[in-house]
Amino acid sequence: MERLKNQMEFILEVDKLKKITRQSYITDGSRKENDTEHSWHLALMCLLLSEYSNEDIDVLKVMSMVLIHDIVEIDAGDTYAYDDAGNETKRERELKAAERIFGILPEDQRCSMMDLWEEFETGETREAKFAAVLDRVQPILLNHTTGGRAWREHEVREEQILKRNERTSEGSEKLWEFCRGMISENVARGSIIAGNGGQAGN
Amino acid sequence: MERLKNQMEFILEVDKLKKITRQSYITDGSRKENDTEHSWHLALMCLLLSEYSNEDIDVLKVMSMVLIHDIVEIDAGDTYAYDDAGNETKRERELKAAERIFGILPEDQRCSMMDLWEEFETGETREAKFAAVLDRVQPILLNHTTGGRAWREHEVREEQILKRNERTSEGSEKLWEFCRGMISENVARGSIIAGNGGQAGN
Ligand SMILES: [Ca+2]
Repeated sequence: MERLKNQMEFILEVDKLKKITRQSYITDGSRKENDTEHSWHLALMCLLLSEYSNEDIDVLKVMSMVLIHDIVEIDAGDTYAYDDAGNETKRERELKAAERIFGILPEDQRCSMMDLWEEFETGETREAKFAAVLDRVQPILLNHTTGGRAWREHEVREEQILKRNERTSEGSEKLWEFCRGMISENVARGSIIAGNGGQAGN
Repeated sequence: MERLKNQMEFILEVDKLKKITRQSYITDGSRKENDTEHSWHLALMCLLLSEYSNEDIDVLKVMSMVLIHDIVEIDAGDTYAYDDAGNETKRERELKAAERIFGILPEDQRCSMMDLWEEFETGETREAKFAAVLDRVQPILLNHTTGGRAWREHEVREEQILKRNERTSEGSEKLWEFCRGMISENVARGSIIAGNGGQAGN
């Protein structure tokens, strides 16, 4: 029973992800969503939108990836996409978290979960690329639906969103096109600051 | 783009599931969990515990099932497992909900999601049986970890839990054995009322 005991310990440990709050608001605007709600949403999107991947993908692999991709945030916290300082130390904090948390699992599953998480982080395989598309599209969809509130609160610039999404079309031309439409609409509305907002340099 | 538009409309509609509260408390006891958190937890358990299914299963199918199994509760609400009156009208309310919500999707996906949901509800295939095991084990695990709070609040009797789980061993002998241990421990502690609690009849 030692194996099952360790698996159950992991399953209980990751319950903590229900407490990690993200910046996107849920559609009724009443509160921000948490990492498990976000991950469920991505897995469901994977089930329904896999036809838009540029390349044939292993749907089970993408689904598994999105289910576990944020587990490291139990220790490392959610680093907002447009928090430059936070993103500098993100990798180190998250790697340490992955080692501790996936380390609760039996050795074979520790390895496969670490590999899956690293594959997502590296973003080079077709599955990782499509998982990244879903991870980008979902907050854009929620932001768009809630009047761009999270963008406005963080004074996000169009340039930042485009930079963050510079590889989204590699995973799905079609879904990136759909996002471009939502981004343009929100720039027009003033929810996203146009261009670089008149900032000098880069 | 009509197809993608309908898919996105569905993806936004089901965001409402983040507001449907269940009876189980999250592990830190601070609040009850919602349906999307529960569904994420089941999908992750499916990824890690499929080895305990009595029969070989299609893991992607079970994962898809658990991701969508509670969507009907957006309209029908969460019916507590031990609410007898609520459970009498459950089927009708949920079928209507499934037709409305899955009906937002393009026809092919509406059909496949309805079929998947019905397969889960009917509980006869090996995938549906294993999905049902996960759906039973997760709240027992959370209840056990939070001192049996939800059981105590609802004065749940051992007999009710055993009746609700009379087919759990059909999906997984091993996981049912693990649950039996947790149930006995909570009967011993007084979190679950022993036997039928001295009630007459059935
Ligand atoms: Ca993240």
